[in-house]
Amino acid sequence: MVVTTQASTRQLDDAEVEGLDRWWRAANYLAVGQIYLMGDDPLLTRPLAAASTKPRLLGHWGTTPGLNLLWAHASRCVRERDLEAIFVTGPGHGGPAVVASTWLEGTWTDVYPDVSRDAAGMGKLFRQFSFPGGIPSHVAADVPGSIHEGGELGYSLAHAHGAAFDDPGLVVFCVVGDGEAETGPLAGSWQSVAFVDAARDGAVLPVLHLNGWKIANPTTVARLSDDDLVAHLGGRGYAPVVVEGPHEGETSADVHRRLAAALDGCLDGIAAIQARARGRAGDDDHEVVGTDDVPRWPLLVLRTPKGWTGPAEVDGERVEGTWRAHQVPISEVRGDDENRRRLEEWMRSYRPEELFDADGRPQQDLLDLVPRRPMSANPRTNGGSVSRPLRLADFRDHAVEVRGPGETMHSPTTVLGDWLARVAVDNPTTFRLFGPDEVASNRLQAVVEAVGRAWAGKGDPDDDRMRPSGRVMEVLSEHLVQGWLEGYLLTGRHGVLTSYEAFVHIVDSMLNQHAKWLKVTRQLPWRDPLPSLNYLLSSHVWRQDHNGFSHQDPGFLDHVATKKAEISRIYLPPDANTLLSTMDHVLRSEHYVNVVVAGKQMVHDYLPVQEAVEHCARGLGIWDWASSDEGEEPDVVVAAAGDVPTLEALAAVDLLRTHLPRLRVRFVNVVDLMRLQSASEHPHGMPDAEFDAVFTRDRPVVMAFHGYPALVHRLTYRRANNGGFHVRGFVEEGTTTTPFDMVSANDMDRFRLAADVLERVPGLLPRHAALRQRLMDARRRAREHAYEHGEDPEEISGWRWPHGGVHHAMPAGTPAGRGGGRPAVDDAGDRPTP
Amino acid sequence: MVVTTQASTRQLDDAEVEGLDRWWRAANYLAVGQIYLMGDDPLLTRPLAAASTKPRLLGHWGTTPGLNLLWAHASRCVRERDLEAIFVTGPGHGGPAVVASTWLEGTWTDVYPDVSRDAAGMGKLFRQFSFPGGIPSHVAADVPGSIHEGGELGYSLAHAHGAAFDDPGLVVFCVVGDGEAETGPLAGSWQSVAFVDAARDGAVLPVLHLNGWKIANPTTVARLSDDDLVAHLGGRGYAPVVVEGPHEGETSADVHRRLAAALDGCLDGIAAIQARARGRAGDDDHEVVGTDDVPRWPLLVLRTPKGWTGPAEVDGERVEGTWRAHQVPISEVRGDDENRRRLEEWMRSYRPEELFDADGRPQQDLLDLVPRRPMSANPRTNGGSVSRPLRLADFRDHAVEVRGPGETMHSPTTVLGDWLARVAVDNPTTFRLFGPDEVASNRLQAVVEAVGRAWAGKGDPDDDRMRPSGRVMEVLSEHLVQGWLEGYLLTGRHGVLTSYEAFVHIVDSMLNQHAKWLKVTRQLPWRDPLPSLNYLLSSHVWRQDHNGFSHQDPGFLDHVATKKAEISRIYLPPDANTLLSTMDHVLRSEHYVNVVVAGKQMVHDYLPVQEAVEHCARGLGIWDWASSDEGEEPDVVVAAAGDVPTLEALAAVDLLRTHLPRLRVRFVNVVDLMRLQSASEHPHGMPDAEFDAVFTRDRPVVMAFHGYPALVHRLTYRRANNGGFHVRGFVEEGTTTTPFDMVSANDMDRFRLAADVLERVPGLLPRHAALRQRLMDARRRAREHAYEHGEDPEEISGWRWPHGGVHHAMPAGTPAGRGGGRPAVDDAGDRPTP
Repeated sequence: MVVTTQASTRQLDDAEVEGLDRWWRAANYLAVGQIYLMGDDPLLTRPLAAASTKPRLLGHWGTTPGLNLLWAHASRCVRERDLEAIFVTGPGHGGPAVVASTWLEGTWTDVYPDVSRDAAGMGKLFRQFSFPGGIPSHVAADVPGSIHEGGELGYSLAHAHGAAFDDPGLVVFCVVGDGEAETGPLAGSWQSVAFVDAARDGAVLPVLHLNGWKIANPTTVARLSDDDLVAHLGGRGYAPVVVEGPHEGETSADVHRRLAAALDGCLDGIAAIQARARGRAGDDDHEVVGTDDVPRWPLLVLRTPKGWTGPAEVDGERVEGTWRAHQVPISEVRGDDENRRRLEEWMRSYRPEELFDADGRPQQDLLDLVPRRPMSANPRTNGGSVSRPLRLADFRDHAVEVRGPGETMHSPTTVLGDWLARVAVDNPTTFRLFGPDEVASNRLQAVVEAVGRAWAGKGDPDDDRMRPSGRVMEVLSEHLVQGWLEGYLLTGRHGVLTSYEAFVHIVDSMLNQHAKWLKVTRQLPWRDPLPSLNYLLSSHVWRQDHNGFSHQDPGFLDHVATKKAEISRIYLPPDANTLLSTMDHVLRSEHYVNVVVAGKQMVHDYLPVQEAVEHCARGLGIWDWASSDEGEEPDVVVAAAGDVPTLEALAAVDLLRTHLPRLRVRFVNVVDLMRLQSASEHPHGMPDAEFDAVFTRDRPVVMAFHGYPALVHRLTYRRANNGGFHVRGFVEEGTTTTPFDMVSANDMDRFRLAADVLERVPGLLPRHAALRQRLMDARRRAREHAYEHGEDPEEISGWRWPHGGVHHAMPAGTPAGRGGGRPAVDDAGDRPTP
Repeated sequence: MVVTTQASTRQLDDAEVEGLDRWWRAANYLAVGQIYLMGDDPLLTRPLAAASTKPRLLGHWGTTPGLNLLWAHASRCVRERDLEAIFVTGPGHGGPAVVASTWLEGTWTDVYPDVSRDAAGMGKLFRQFSFPGGIPSHVAADVPGSIHEGGELGYSLAHAHGAAFDDPGLVVFCVVGDGEAETGPLAGSWQSVAFVDAARDGAVLPVLHLNGWKIANPTTVARLSDDDLVAHLGGRGYAPVVVEGPHEGETSADVHRRLAAALDGCLDGIAAIQARARGRAGDDDHEVVGTDDVPRWPLLVLRTPKGWTGPAEVDGERVEGTWRAHQVPISEVRGDDENRRRLEEWMRSYRPEELFDADGRPQQDLLDLVPRRPMSANPRTNGGSVSRPLRLADFRDHAVEVRGPGETMHSPTTVLGDWLARVAVDNPTTFRLFGPDEVASNRLQAVVEAVGRAWAGKGDPDDDRMRPSGRVMEVLSEHLVQGWLEGYLLTGRHGVLTSYEAFVHIVDSMLNQHAKWLKVTRQLPWRDPLPSLNYLLSSHVWRQDHNGFSHQDPGFLDHVATKKAEISRIYLPPDANTLLSTMDHVLRSEHYVNVVVAGKQMVHDYLPVQEAVEHCARGLGIWDWASSDEGEEPDVVVAAAGDVPTLEALAAVDLLRTHLPRLRVRFVNVVDLMRLQSASEHPHGMPDAEFDAVFTRDRPVVMAFHGYPALVHRLTYRRANNGGFHVRGFVEEGTTTTPFDMVSANDMDRFRLAADVLERVPGLLPRHAALRQRLMDARRRAREHAYEHGEDPEEISGWRWPHGGVHHAMPAGTPAGRGGGRPAVDDAGDRPTP
C-alpha cells in the first residue's frame, strides 16, 4: 500500500558525474580549510606549517560532506530545470558546507566584497570561520541564502513548508539530519505534507540524510531498516526513495549516479503532482468532501557515511562513518606534527590544484555549474527584500460603538475576527492565520468563514470549511504552526499565531531562536527588515473555566521580556476597540516579536475607537472618567494592565468612590507594557518625567496585572516610585473556577484591591478598619456563593461601571495623557485622610 | 516487512461481554452526571429539574466514552491476568471518565471518604466536578491512580515509559488521543520503543485512540487509512493491531468482542517478548553488537466515534462522531426545557436503575469486576509512597584537593561524573541519568563507562557501551528525556537530566506542568513527596565556543524563578567541590525542581571540600581570602554567581587589589540563588539582617551574574540595598568566540567589572580616571589579541588568583558567613577614597 518514488531512468554522462564530483571536492576542501586553517596559505602552496593552523579547532565536520553532496546535486537540478529553489539546512552546524558552496557560487563575495572569490578571499573565508570577530559556525543569518540556522534542531521541515506556502513556483530542498529527526518538533513536522496545496503552494522536497550518528550515540532513525523507513514515512503520506552508498568497492561516482537519478525522480514526481493539480486549477478549490485523492509527495532518504572523505582512522580508532567524526576528527594539529601531516594529506586528497587556478579562483568548469538562479542568492531568503506591506482595511469600520464607559460588552476577539477576516480576504497570498486547533475556540471563526481552513488530506462531510486553498492553518502542534509561520515570515509574508496563553510556552525556545535571528539580522545591513512575528494569546490565564490550573500560566510575557529590547513588544488591550487598534499596529510593524494578550470572553467596552487609538498610541494613560483626583495630586494610583485586571481594578475604584468619596483616586490603564520600562532600557520606555507625572514619584500605586507581579517590578526597577508599586497578579494559585473564584484565589479581586488601597494610603486604615472588614466579608460571601451555586453572584458577574463619565479627548501632543505636563509635587503633608 | 499483532482467538462469552458493557454504561452515566448534574438526585429518581442541572456546563464529553471503554477492557485484563498495571490517560480532559471508573473501583472513596460509594457520594461526585471548590476537569493529581494530568498534550507516552523502566512486573496502558498524536513531543515519543529492556523493564501498551476530531478540526492521524497507519507505526518498530467499530448494524457488543480479542493478543505478545528475554536473562546483558534481534512490541489502534452513545444530533446538526461532541454536546439545559429533556433521555439511555441499587451502590456484579489490584489504587501512582532514598556514597571521597584558592584547575562535571558513576552503580534499579546526546559532551563519560547506555535497538560495532540494561538514557529529544524522567520520578525513582543550558528551554512548558503537579500534590495529604526533578545544565551560556549565539541563553533560570517558591531551587556552584556538595544535596531532596548550572570546562578550584560543604549550606557567603576589607565595613562589595562570573569577578578583585591596595573590597559568592530573595518570599531567602550584613545596606554592589541581570534585581527587590546592586550578566550579545571575547561582549569581563567599581564607589573616579582608561585599554587589547590570533592572550587565559589566602573555616552557626553578626553601619562619611 506504501507508494514509493521511482528513480529517473535518465543516467548522467561521465562529464556530468565528473562535474558533480569536482564541485563536491571543492566544497569539501573549502570546508576543511575553514575548520583548520588560518588562511595565510589557503591553496597549500607550501607544506602545512603549524602557524597556518588555527589555535582553537572549532566546528563540525561530520555532517559537512553530506551537505556538500546534496548542495551539489540540488544545484545541478536547479540549473538543468531552471528552478526557483532554496536550500534549508537542518544540520546547521554543518556551516562550513553551506558557506563553501555559497562562496563557490559567488554570492558570499556579492554580499561581503572583501571576501573575494580568489586566494585572498579564500584565506579570509578560512580565517573568519568560527574565529573571534568572524562568522558563526552554523548556517546563521550571516550566511546568504539561509533562512534557517539549524543551531537548535527540530524546525527545518516546518520552516521549509512555511517558505513554500503561497509560492507556487518554489522548490525547497530541505535536509533533515537523522539527529534532528529524533526531536519531537521534527517528528511532528512530517504531517505538514497534508497541508500543501499542490495548485497554489510551492513544493518541499525533504531529504532525510542518515549518516548514522549524533555526538556520541547512533541515531534511532538510521537503525531502522530501509523497509521500515519506507513504511514509516510512506505511511505518513510520502512516496520515499532511498539512496545509499558507497557500497563495498564503489566510488563516489556510483553514488552520484544513483543520487542524481533519485533526485530527478523526486522532481519529476513533484512536477507531475503540480501539473495535475494546476491543470484543473480553478475547480479544485472546493471543500475536499469525501475524497481521498491525496497526492503522495516524494521524499528522499540518503544514507552516506558520517564524515565521508575524512580520515578513516585516527590513533587506531575508526573515525569516518562513526560518531567520532562529529566535530573535529583530527585535533592538536598545531602542536602535533604527525596530526598536522594527516590533516595536510586529507586536504590534498581533494586535489585543490585541479579545482582552483593559481590565483585561487574556481576553475571555469566549476563556475559554469553555477545556476542562473543560485540557491544562495534567492531573494526569498532575504524575506524583507521581497516583502510588501499588507493591505489593511480601516479597523475603525469594525469598531464597536461606545456611548459611555462600560455600558456595553463585547468579546474582543470576536470583534477582531471580523476585521481579520477582511485582512485575510484582502491579502489572499500574503497573510495566513495560524493556530493549534483554537482559532474557532478563540472566537476568530469569522476568519474561517471568510477564507477557510487549509487541508489537503482526505475529506469528510463533517469538515468545517476545509480546502487546499484555505488560509487558516490549524494542527495540534504549537511547534508546527510556529515553525510554519516563521518560515512564512522569513520569506517576507505576514501572519498571526493565536494560541492558548499557557501553551505558547511550548515554543519558548523557538521564540528564542527567532528573536536571535531578528537581533542578528538587524545588524546585517544587507538583510532587510522582516514582517513581525505576531502572537495573539487568547483563552488566557484568567479565563480557563473548562480547564483549570494546567491551562493557567502567564509566564510567556516574562520570557519575551528577557529578549533584546529592540525586538520585544507586549500589549494588553483591555477591550475590543483597543484590541483592534493594537492589531492594526502590530500588522504594520517590522522586525519585532509582538505579543498581544486579549480575552475571548465578553468584556466591557471602555473606549470609543478614536480614544482607543489615542490610548494605544500613548501606551498607557490616565482614564479621567474613572479617576476622582480631579486634576490634583492623587492619594493613590490604581493601575491595571490586561482585560480582567482592568475589570477588577475598575470595580475596586467603584468601591472606593462609593465608600470613600473624598479619596483622590487616579486610574491608569496600561496597554503597552514596555512603556513601564525606562526609556534608557527600551525604545518604548516612557521618559521618567512623564512616568512620574502619571504614577507620581511617591504615592502608593496599587496595580492589577495580567501576569506574574515580579515582571512589573522588574520593568519599573529604575523608576523613582518603584518602591511604591504594590502589584497583584497571578501567583500560581489555580482554581476550578468561576471568574471571581479565580481572581480572588490570586488576591487580584476588587475587594482585595480596594483593601490594598486602604492599607497603602497612609492614615487610611486606622479610620476605616470597619470598611476593610466589610470588604473582606463581601469577598468571602462572593466566594461562598460560588461554592454553593456554581456561579458568581449577580452583583459580581453583573457589575457595571456605575459612575458614567465622558471620554475627554486628550491633546495629541501629550504623550502621557492628561497628567503629561503636570509637575510631580510632593504634597504628602496636605493629604486628606478621608 | 511490517509486523502486526494478531488478535487472540479466545472469544469472550456473553456474560463477559455483558459485564463489560454494564461497566461501560455505568461509567458513561457517571461521566455525564459529573458534567451536567448538581447531584441532588443523582439516580434520576424524578424527572430532571432545571435546578438539578449545573448553571455552568464545563468539561469534555467527546473523549470520555472511549476512555471508559478502554478502562473497562484494560481492567478486565488486569483482573483475569492479575496484572500490576496502571493507566495513563493522554486525553486527560476526559477527567469524568477516569473519575467515574475510580469511583466504581472504590478507590475514590478510599481517598476521599466523604464521597461514599452510594447515592450520597454519587451526588457529591457529580457536584464536585469542575465546580468551585471541587475538582479539576482533567485527570489531575487529585485523581487517585493518575501520574499524568493530560492538560497539556504530548507527554503521555514518555510518562508511560518512564513509569515502566526498571519495573519488570508492570504493564502501563497508555491511551494516546489522536489530537495528542499531532504534537511534536508525542510524535517523537514513539521511538521510546527502542529503549525498553524486555528483561528488566515493564511493558508499555500504547493505545492510539482515534475518535477522528479535535476541538474544531479533524485529526491528521485519523485521516490515514488503516494500511498507512499500520505502516507508519509498524515501520517505527511496533506490531500494531487495529480495532474499529461499531460498523453499520453492529452493537457495542461486537466492539467489545473485537477489542477484547485485540487486547488479549497484545498482552500475549508482551508476555511472549518478556518470557523470551527473561528466559535468557543474565546472558543478554551484553552490548548489542551486530544484532538486529529487536522485538516488535504490540500497539493497539482503536477507532470509535467521538462522543459515542451521546446525542446523535442536536438542532439538526450531527454531534456524535463529529467535532461538535468535543465539550458539552447539549448546552443550555437549565433554561431550555427541550434540551433538558434530551439530556435526561440521554442519561436514562444508560439504564442506571439496572446498574446501581436503590441506595446508589453499584450492583454486586459490577463490584465483582474490580480487580484484586485495581489500576486506580496502584501504589506506584503515588510515587512518594513507594520511593526509597538513594544510597549516596560520600562525595567527599571524590573531592579534589585544594591547597590554596585557585592553585589548581578541574572540570567540575568530570569530577562530578566519577561520583555520579558510583551513585549509578550503587542504585542499579532506582537511578538513571538522562540527556539529549550530551552526557559525554558534558564530561559525564564516567557514568557511561560504569553503567552503559540504554539501547534495545539494532547494534553496531562502533556503538559505545550500549546495551538494554544501560542506565544512561540518551535520545536527541529534550521532550522525550524530560518525559521519561518525569514518569520515572512520578513512580518514585530518582534521576538527573543533563542538557545544554540554552536548549533546556525546549521543555519550559513541561517544567511548568511538572511544577504545577508538585504544587498541587504538596496540598494533597494522601500524596507523599516525590523525588526532586534535578537539572544539571552544563555547556552553558558562557562556554559555547563550537556553537555561538544560538546556543547562548540563560533564561531557564528566569523561567524557574516564576514557579512557586516552595518548589523552585537554583544553584550556581563555582567549582568542582561545590558542585559535588550541591548535587549530593539535590539528590537527597524531595519535591523540588532543582536547577544546577555548572560548566564542563576547566575552572579554578577555590574551596576545599569541607569549606565547600559549609559554603553550600550557607548558600552565599563572604570569601575572606578574596576580600580586602579586613573585617571592616567595605567600600564596595564585588559579588559573583556562577563559575565564569566568579572567575571574572575574582580577576577584577585582583586588578583592584593591585591598583588600589587601600580600597576595602568584600567578595561574596552566591551558590544558592534563592538566598538573594527575601525570607518572606522564598523558604531559602536570607533574613534581611544577615543579608544586609553581607551586602551592606548602602555600599555599591558590583555583581557578575551567570544569567540575565534583571533576575538579580527581581530577587533582591525587597532588600534595603536593592538600588545599590549593579549587575553584569548576559545581555543577548552572542559572539563567535573566545572565552574573553564572550564575557567582554556582554560587559562582564574583569576590566569592565573593575571599572564599574571605580564608577560606583563615590569619589573614586575623579582620582582614578587614568586607571579606568588603562583598564579599558587592556580590555581592548585583549580583544584585539583574540581577533588577531584566534585565542585569548596568556595573561587572560592563564590568569591565576595571585594573592594566596587561607580558607578561614567559619563557625557553623553563622549562616551568612563571617559577616553574619556584624551590624550594618553607615560610615559613608569616613570612607577613604584610595
